[in-house]
Amino acid sequence: MQIAMLGDRIVPLSEAGPEYLDRGTFFGDGVYEVLRSYNGRIFAFEEHLARLERSLAGVDITGIDIAEVRSLVLRAFEKAGIAEAKIYFHITRGSGLRDHLPDRDMKPNFFLTVTDLKENPKLNQEGIAVSTYPDIRWKRCDIKSLNLLANVLAREDAAKKKCFEAIFVNEDGFITEGAGSAFFGIVNGKLRTAPLSANILPSVTRKYVIKAAGNIGLNIEEKSLQTKEAAKAEELFIAVTTKDIVPVVKFDNRTIGYGKPGNLTKQLIEEFRKFTGS
Amino acid sequence: MQIAMLGDRIVPLSEAGPEYLDRGTFFGDGVYEVLRSYNGRIFAFEEHLARLERSLAGVDITGIDIAEVRSLVLRAFEKAGIAEAKIYFHITRGSGLRDHLPDRDMKPNFFLTVTDLKENPKLNQEGIAVSTYPDIRWKRCDIKSLNLLANVLAREDAAKKKCFEAIFVNEDGFITEGAGSAFFGIVNGKLRTAPLSANILPSVTRKYVIKAAGNIGLNIEEKSLQTKEAAKAEELFIAVTTKDIVPVVKFDNRTIGYGKPGNLTKQLIEEFRKFTGS
Repeated sequence: MQIAMLGDRIVPLSEAGPEYLDRGTFFGDGVYEVLRSYNGRIFAFEEHLARLERSLAGVDITGIDIAEVRSLVLRAFEKAGIAEAKIYFHITRGSGLRDHLPDRDMKPNFFLTVTDLKENPKLNQEGIAVSTYPDIRWKRCDIKSLNLLANVLAREDAAKKKCFEAIFVNEDGFITEGAGSAFFGIVNGKLRTAPLSANILPSVTRKYVIKAAGNIGLNIEEKSLQTKEAAKAEELFIAVTTKDIVPVVKFDNRTIGYGKPGNLTKQLIEEFRKFTGS
Repeated sequence: MQIAMLGDRIVPLSEAGPEYLDRGTFFGDGVYEVLRSYNGRIFAFEEHLARLERSLAGVDITGIDIAEVRSLVLRAFEKAGIAEAKIYFHITRGSGLRDHLPDRDMKPNFFLTVTDLKENPKLNQEGIAVSTYPDIRWKRCDIKSLNLLANVLAREDAAKKKCFEAIFVNEDGFITEGAGSAFFGIVNGKLRTAPLSANILPSVTRKYVIKAAGNIGLNIEEKSLQTKEAAKAEELFIAVTTKDIVPVVKFDNRTIGYGKPGNLTKQLIEEFRKFTGS
């Protein structure tokens, strides 16, 4: 008899529900998005949906109606009734007996959570320490996929070093991005960040940071930073949906600026707030 | 109220069971093994358990007693009572609210299936066609992790080309391994395969193929094949737990040998059977 074992419990295979046979678990065969709301309004919802559509296409998951995803997310968000919410959702290719080659008729799985966004204003006010980690991720990080083990390992390494975020560095010594954030520096008075490529997630927050930089008259250079440039930068910060802009005051144990958030970073934080209405 | 949405059904977050909050799904944060039995006996069980232990260490999943895993697998295998079985199992870091940084007290999840091994002797007798695919996987493929989306995409690409397996080629034009198999060639009368490294899974079947090659007096060279070498090889084959040795008779549409399994490959298949008793 074909069986499944869930923990130490044996059941006939036919009784193992689709949640146990999810290709999301077997292969990380799915994509995800993280949204946040400010005062009851989801920020940059359409941009996130547009990226979702690109991620789905990138892994060839078909049959998803973006309008339906929009309505599911809105329904859940309204039901939760959380003003400052974090909305996470993923779509996997579907469930079935494990086989690398998916069944073409598979129905995708949708999973979502709406939780309280736990903000820690100290992070944005005082800044964080970050540490570098080799960028061992796969070569399609422009797809927001569930293959995130390298990110987990990097974040664990950072935590061991009492750092809040891990910054990925490729084999040539260039910074790609954070384990869960986009990475920016102020170098020679200009805003520097890696250009979008197959190794970089097209971060929605990144886009708004660049817009904010334009608004305050800051020159923008989309050119990857070397680790040694970052260590000597005037200012550094990360940007991520759930935390907006967070100043970096320590980079691999090296103090950035005067160990306090830089002035341009603070101006960007203010400018960014105009987009979010927060 | 914090909520989860399972498909289109909304539940309080506290009612979303651990199977929905598995880090295996959120991050591919887990490792797996595939075993097979021949006539009621699991083949190379201890080697697979030893590799599992290395994989767990590689991703820093702690608190797993290998003796307990052995006994769970044996209990399931006995309960299933399938003589020619495929045993798949994975261990994930655990379940919890999604956060890259895991809770140190998390309890790992164990999931296993025992299914009928569907053998297709035609594959081994007639050989298969394979196609190449860029090796876009992460840089720790020596860990048998659940981050397998690149393998899925490669296998989908192969299927579109009517090929049975995808063979990964790195940026320098060297073959690493198959999407779900080890890759071998006979070049100038020697057995060639990529040396073990961070980019190669230490395949148990590979080890037995090398042993079989030694037994029939074949010289072995652990040196990666270039795609152009493979295309001109005397013989090619893949090796994988669930299918043993499978001759490759077409490589990127190019006929290998005479389009039939080569003599040395056939000898290796025979020699390999001595290990498995099949």
